[in-house]
Amino acid sequence: MPRPFAGAFFVSLRMLVLKFSYAHLHQFAIAVFKKMGCSDAHAELATRALLAADLRGIDSHGIARLSGYVRLWEVQRVNATSVMRILHQTPSTAVLDGDQGLGLVVAQEAMQIAIAKAEKVGTGWVSVQNSNHFGIAGYHAMLALEHNMIGIAMTNASPLVAPTFSIDKMLGTNPIAVAAPAGNQPPFVADLATTTAANGKLELLQLKNQETPTGWVQDQSGDPSTDAHILKKGGALLPLGSDREHGSHKGYAMGAIVDLFSALLSGANYAPWVPPFPAYVPLPVQQPGKGIGHFLGAMRIDAFRPADEFKKDMDHWIEGFRSSTPVKGQPQVLVPGDPERLAELERKQEGIPLHEKVVSELKTLGQRFDLPFE
Amino acid sequence: MPRPFAGAFFVSLRMLVLKFSYAHLHQFAIAVFKKMGCSDAHAELATRALLAADLRGIDSHGIARLSGYVRLWEVQRVNATSVMRILHQTPSTAVLDGDQGLGLVVAQEAMQIAIAKAEKVGTGWVSVQNSNHFGIAGYHAMLALEHNMIGIAMTNASPLVAPTFSIDKMLGTNPIAVAAPAGNQPPFVADLATTTAANGKLELLQLKNQETPTGWVQDQSGDPSTDAHILKKGGALLPLGSDREHGSHKGYAMGAIVDLFSALLSGANYAPWVPPFPAYVPLPVQQPGKGIGHFLGAMRIDAFRPADEFKKDMDHWIEGFRSSTPVKGQPQVLVPGDPERLAELERKQEGIPLHEKVVSELKTLGQRFDLPFE
Repeated sequence: MPRPFAGAFFVSLRMLVLKFSYAHLHQFAIAVFKKMGCSDAHAELATRALLAADLRGIDSHGIARLSGYVRLWEVQRVNATSVMRILHQTPSTAVLDGDQGLGLVVAQEAMQIAIAKAEKVGTGWVSVQNSNHFGIAGYHAMLALEHNMIGIAMTNASPLVAPTFSIDKMLGTNPIAVAAPAGNQPPFVADLATTTAANGKLELLQLKNQETPTGWVQDQSGDPSTDAHILKKGGALLPLGSDREHGSHKGYAMGAIVDLFSALLSGANYAPWVPPFPAYVPLPVQQPGKGIGHFLGAMRIDAFRPADEFKKDMDHWIEGFRSSTPVKGQPQVLVPGDPERLAELERKQEGIPLHEKVVSELKTLGQRFDLPFE
Repeated sequence: MPRPFAGAFFVSLRMLVLKFSYAHLHQFAIAVFKKMGCSDAHAELATRALLAADLRGIDSHGIARLSGYVRLWEVQRVNATSVMRILHQTPSTAVLDGDQGLGLVVAQEAMQIAIAKAEKVGTGWVSVQNSNHFGIAGYHAMLALEHNMIGIAMTNASPLVAPTFSIDKMLGTNPIAVAAPAGNQPPFVADLATTTAANGKLELLQLKNQETPTGWVQDQSGDPSTDAHILKKGGALLPLGSDREHGSHKGYAMGAIVDLFSALLSGANYAPWVPPFPAYVPLPVQQPGKGIGHFLGAMRIDAFRPADEFKKDMDHWIEGFRSSTPVKGQPQVLVPGDPERLAELERKQEGIPLHEKVVSELKTLGQRFDLPFE
């Protein structure tokens, strides 16, 4: 099958990697979450969301982050026994207090609330405060699919991105995901950071000691850079569009919209005050809100038109794009969600490749909890 | 005042331009819409939406398009006496049939429906079929502001954009606008085409016989081009991000999301089947839907949290970005909506500059309807 995008996700294969079955990683991750104090149900939810990243080829957001979540729990920034509650609601909206829980779990609870509201009044929209990183946005958006709904998921994140014309890191990579069901075709699943490149891509280049393409990062003066380590030297990621001439003010605006929906509507921290993911980085002083923020939405298809008509059109839309003329050297034009679905097919059969550094971290983590990794 | 973005909007000032008061253009446009058969109320709504573009510095979408709307009416693609009706609804959603009316009017009706639903159940979402071009998205989104709501507006448009890896024009510039109220600060208003550059910018370069920067367009083979006339030679606009390495698949996904919400949810035409704006371009055969599609949304702030708390945080957010450190040579970091607001302030006082070519077209239009332009 054609797989023109997939190259980037398999870069790590050229380094020393080991492959693990989904079942093996699932068993380990669920055990770790339970050791942290998560209930069986929360451990299962957290594991599914976490490993969805590994399955879908977004290695930076999967089990490679498990140690990071544990470190946040150790410094009491993650509450493994969170009790979420709705702070305010209307028939189509709610604000959810995540009680400092794992975003992996909190976002799923928020999406279930959105889905329940959509069942009743057509759409449901939940803004979340007091949460933590939720893994990949696409997983949460896709929860709506089986209900014949369009799912939407956004989150703000640690400030790494400089707005157009600024040298300060004011926004996270603030992703947006939209999942829409089709008929015979697989669903449309867009899941994108509002930056030119996600931080996970920088981390891959760091591992390989390679430079970034131009237009991904700037240095501490706002000048162009290709140093994959530049974030540690005062540099910043660039919004989608890279520079003003190529529309970086649009990527900046998209990232800002995610911040407004996720944090200004919920009362979470926003902009440079979003708590950082690495547990060793101190929390910003004078935090204006609580934890990090998410925004989850569900729209029932038949709140607009019959689902079968919509799905027929979706198939036609998808087939139209797939059969459009590719540029020379590309086998086929892709539809959002294709690369991740192909990665998932492959990894379910052949296992999930983990870099030796990640394997070593997981072994250390296993020792800490008396849970052998291998 | 600092105006680093505004330069692009005033390029035309260096060519032969004449300035006209808002009142003068308003009087003329409203008379033209009435001659087409619009009711007084529709003529007023259409004029306000159209001239909002001229006021806000988006010259390509304002009165320069009036002749284009008239030509669409002449070939019976625009129905000046449209009777809109709701095809289906739930407490938070509706599908509106625009009856082939002016999008300038239809989108405002859709937004009023969304606002009314948001008053009742917290949010309102209206997908529109059988409409025409609606002017600037930002104007429609801003209608929600006076109701203490966040406004959202999207539309699909004539296919000019090639998806990543394709040479076919499959999507329009499909803009997204989000307007959110603040307290002491002016509102946040993001209004962006999901392409590197909007078609209006190409048109300006064509007038001046200049080339585009790299990354805006590709030629008929999908190779890079800087020819501002390339769309007429089989070329295409590029999605925001320009190329795969700089995230064009994300701009492509954003444009696709706009298409799904505007047309697949409503039953409008989508992808390459969207009716073209120029009246001389034949309609695509085998159209899968009706007219073009929009998507309008309104979210009541206090469906999430008290509006005064939200606005206080919005002020803090906006002040934070404005006071972030600018790169050398830039006086200040801007917030989405700043350039357009500054243009509006200036143009309300000093008049709206129109290129001589536009003035000449308006004079011809005036003769056609026995309405002297000057």
